[in-house]
Amino acid sequence: MSTYEDRLKALREQLNKDRLDGFVVPLTDEHMSEYVGAYAQRLAWLTGFQGSAGSAVVLPEEAAIFVDGRYTLQVREQVDAKHWEYVGVPQSSVAAWLREHAPNGARIGYDPWLHTKHWVKQATEALGEKGAELVAVEHNPVDAVWPDRPEPSKAKLIVHPERYAGRNAAEKRQEIADWLASKKADAAVLSALDSIAWTFNIRGQDVDRTPVALAYAIVHADATADLYVSPEKLADDVLQHLGNAVRVHDRRNFAEDLGEFSGKRIAADPERAVAAIFERLEKGGTTVLELRDPVVLPKAIKNAVEIAGHKAAQARDGAALSRFLHWLSVVGPKGTESEMSAADRLRAFREETGCLVDLSFDTISGSGPNGAVVHYRVEEKTNRPLQPGTLYLVDSGAQYRDGTTDVTRTIAVGSPTQEMRERFTLVLKGHIALGRAQFPKGTRGSQLDVLARQYLWAAGLDYAHGTGHGVGSFLSVHEGPQRIATFGGGDEPLQAGMILSNEPGYYKTGEYGIRIENLVLVERREVQGAEQEMLGFETLTFAPVDRHLVEPSMLSGAERAWLDDYHAKVLEVVGPQLEGEALLWLEDACRPLEG
Amino acid sequence: MSTYEDRLKALREQLNKDRLDGFVVPLTDEHMSEYVGAYAQRLAWLTGFQGSAGSAVVLPEEAAIFVDGRYTLQVREQVDAKHWEYVGVPQSSVAAWLREHAPNGARIGYDPWLHTKHWVKQATEALGEKGAELVAVEHNPVDAVWPDRPEPSKAKLIVHPERYAGRNAAEKRQEIADWLASKKADAAVLSALDSIAWTFNIRGQDVDRTPVALAYAIVHADATADLYVSPEKLADDVLQHLGNAVRVHDRRNFAEDLGEFSGKRIAADPERAVAAIFERLEKGGTTVLELRDPVVLPKAIKNAVEIAGHKAAQARDGAALSRFLHWLSVVGPKGTESEMSAADRLRAFREETGCLVDLSFDTISGSGPNGAVVHYRVEEKTNRPLQPGTLYLVDSGAQYRDGTTDVTRTIAVGSPTQEMRERFTLVLKGHIALGRAQFPKGTRGSQLDVLARQYLWAAGLDYAHGTGHGVGSFLSVHEGPQRIATFGGGDEPLQAGMILSNEPGYYKTGEYGIRIENLVLVERREVQGAEQEMLGFETLTFAPVDRHLVEPSMLSGAERAWLDDYHAKVLEVVGPQLEGEALLWLEDACRPLEG
Repeated sequence: MSTYEDRLKALREQLNKDRLDGFVVPLTDEHMSEYVGAYAQRLAWLTGFQGSAGSAVVLPEEAAIFVDGRYTLQVREQVDAKHWEYVGVPQSSVAAWLREHAPNGARIGYDPWLHTKHWVKQATEALGEKGAELVAVEHNPVDAVWPDRPEPSKAKLIVHPERYAGRNAAEKRQEIADWLASKKADAAVLSALDSIAWTFNIRGQDVDRTPVALAYAIVHADATADLYVSPEKLADDVLQHLGNAVRVHDRRNFAEDLGEFSGKRIAADPERAVAAIFERLEKGGTTVLELRDPVVLPKAIKNAVEIAGHKAAQARDGAALSRFLHWLSVVGPKGTESEMSAADRLRAFREETGCLVDLSFDTISGSGPNGAVVHYRVEEKTNRPLQPGTLYLVDSGAQYRDGTTDVTRTIAVGSPTQEMRERFTLVLKGHIALGRAQFPKGTRGSQLDVLARQYLWAAGLDYAHGTGHGVGSFLSVHEGPQRIATFGGGDEPLQAGMILSNEPGYYKTGEYGIRIENLVLVERREVQGAEQEMLGFETLTFAPVDRHLVEPSMLSGAERAWLDDYHAKVLEVVGPQLEGEALLWLEDACRPLEG
Repeated sequence: MSTYEDRLKALREQLNKDRLDGFVVPLTDEHMSEYVGAYAQRLAWLTGFQGSAGSAVVLPEEAAIFVDGRYTLQVREQVDAKHWEYVGVPQSSVAAWLREHAPNGARIGYDPWLHTKHWVKQATEALGEKGAELVAVEHNPVDAVWPDRPEPSKAKLIVHPERYAGRNAAEKRQEIADWLASKKADAAVLSALDSIAWTFNIRGQDVDRTPVALAYAIVHADATADLYVSPEKLADDVLQHLGNAVRVHDRRNFAEDLGEFSGKRIAADPERAVAAIFERLEKGGTTVLELRDPVVLPKAIKNAVEIAGHKAAQARDGAALSRFLHWLSVVGPKGTESEMSAADRLRAFREETGCLVDLSFDTISGSGPNGAVVHYRVEEKTNRPLQPGTLYLVDSGAQYRDGTTDVTRTIAVGSPTQEMRERFTLVLKGHIALGRAQFPKGTRGSQLDVLARQYLWAAGLDYAHGTGHGVGSFLSVHEGPQRIATFGGGDEPLQAGMILSNEPGYYKTGEYGIRIENLVLVERREVQGAEQEMLGFETLTFAPVDRHLVEPSMLSGAERAWLDDYHAKVLEVVGPQLEGEALLWLEDACRPLEG
């Protein structure tokens, strides 16, 4: 196997052949996906970086890797400082770095299938200040020097039946057609993989943890559609499910077919479709309407069937997690288990449900100081034992056919310190304040974020991540557009039917991490005397909060009542699924708070 | 005097002469001021609208007036529906309306001295979709048909001495020069009137309620400046104060002089300088750097002398307001007073301080249902008596040489209903939650807004305005960039030294209005064990909150303690300035809460 040094050298030689002075390597795919298949892991192949977000730039004499605050430590461990400069984003950016470092008059390549047109515009402007040029490549030079690059997955598509989806695909296409009519558009290009999965009621197995299939789609004003997908992925049941109104094409013909809409008005989403799609459409004489993907909002607003499915998934998942927490309560204090063995055991409990399709993301299983690494992924090298006197943070989730889960619990292994209890309780107070929030229709997630932080702030503490993300229905565990955060999103008004996480935390570097995460459903509230339509959250996740970490004297009466009610509900939902010791443990874990 | 119908007709004839098919009439001046002199009140002259924000468009057959939610009712009373269509913003906009209504190929005029370049761009694009054109006029056609249009004020400039300003003007110019050097710029154009007043330590008397003078300024990289102002406004003391490094020019030469910077790099603020300034600079061969006015932030962050002055002003103002509240407690229940007589009496108490320069805005004196009109201005026609069983809302402020105040109190005249008490207490809880907030450096006002709304939301209630605005130092009572609101600002990180209002409210249309407003100072907080720099608010306003409207059972222990502490501080600051009955009343009004 070649070294990372060899790979960088090979890429530079390739750039030389391609008459380029540099190249930009993002971590995404042709669908602007957050999680990408092995074939698109160019950044990891080139640099060794294993994080889930980042990018790199290679120049003849310099190379830089760009990561955000979550990966500041990780990038130093995984990427060789001898060859790579580490650059922090959003303090800097690829465009800003290129403005400083690109030679005058340089030709810097980029793959137009891996960037938004907004990025291309910004980078072009930044390079323009140096008389340098951003050049779209026909063939990705990383692929040219990556000999054993995996093929894109050929896994079969799966039908996502109406009993889970709640609506049939023809109806969804008609809704898009109605939207097209309102915009006087002839068709919409869909390239986000979860949008395509949702629209056609299909799922895939091409990306770990996210049940999507590599595909493109064009939905027309007559409610028919063209679906671009590798033919070997289509079994008969899927073809039958898609029906006559959906014309199936080889995914490789998509780019060329974009040139066939001369004189038409085609909608495409500049945040979700890559620059190449816009270029091809425009080159073919199309009027491109830059509009948000019409599927984004209907996908985010779950229907009654999806909500019922999600609740069934949560009840099942809550039982698996509760069994795990019971197991942990027994074995944890013995000091015989590790982050890895615990994560494996948790997966096994989920598998025992008989319904697990996949995890919804790699389990974050962090003991002691590893719990303070927000996006920690356990591996042999870092694996720590679970030791008495430490906190153990476990953030995990599952993909079931009826729903996607995501839950974090923080557990005291042995006796916690008073500081741990106090800080856990501050996080809990924030979690409860957000969970209890009631707000008028039109309120955006960014407005609510402070509710979860206020008690930490009062103690001079905070956490450096958002408070909540949207979640899909047997789809991405991170799904927009709704979000509870101050920076990077949060502008979308919350609507009844949206699912979000509620996950404040606190992280003491080198010592411990705390996070409490439940999923919540935005629901309509009937309020006596209300002067406008009000919304609130229904908690969807059911598993005990570790009472050993709660300092009752810091809770108000209303907060205690919330926690006691929550635990009563956990017992009601999960209790009937447990038996013996596990049930006894659950009953104890869910009894009203004393003290 | 001509009727509004005559005026509209005259304007249309003028447009015809000017070969225009329409014209846009905003409510602002050449400085993008919020409050403008009589000479610039074109919207009021043309339509009769007396609100403080709005705009109009006149087409050959149609005319529309655009106002926000505060003025929905008022515009219907003041502007004739026979000639004017009422359009709500921000749901619609001038640009959107023109896109719908402007005839194909129309030439729509605008005065480039009354719009930002951003507005011009948007409106040009909107009209472009109709093949119509936005045309800059040389002479404002409204002025051409307004025979008795007032001259711009010739009032004298006033020196704002260092004992109030805290820093001398040469130092401020040097700071701007240093900023210019960092931007590699040769000069900055200042056109915001409060920026000019702050920079040169001068004040003016050209605009009611805001002590600014009509002027423009250009500050150069060598720390000298050109000040454009009518020569008759400059007495010897001001000329001496300005000194040799400030070259004084007639304001009428400003536009022409903008053409004299060929080859230079000049900074101008696209949000604060009008489109005409950019056009003139660009036409003259200048490289224009679009940067925020460099004065905005130093002006917002008050220095120690300004803070001390503000506190002196608040102590004085609190005593005047407390005397008024005592007077009101005696005469209110008799039913002999009215909104107008009360506002006059309050002004008289402020005048008795011997320091009042002007009010800082027209007093909002709202009895019963008038209190529910958020931007109510009392006039003969609407004047209501103060009657037992109603609420009286009084929002008022003063301009003193050492500081600008703004305070709202809501008073029960006679016995309030239980509903009034409960809703007042919800507003008070929000006011206290915001007042007690502690937050990390970098927090923006938009993040804190929900703290003031959360208790109203829990009852299904809300208020349709922002929670806090910045306040100047003997300058504008509304001063950016800081703001506590979700929409329309709030993105500026709060910094120690900024002054803001804290003014949640509740309005029951047709019945009563509630608002509780104090000014607060952002201050650094020393927090034991804090992991980052923390900020909080110091309350600056001192006057009792009406205890008859507080429902003690709805307050938490911490909230009661806040209110009791606040009242103790009111007594400490204001008590020594009162005597006799007024002092006895204050002592009673400030005693700890019972029940």
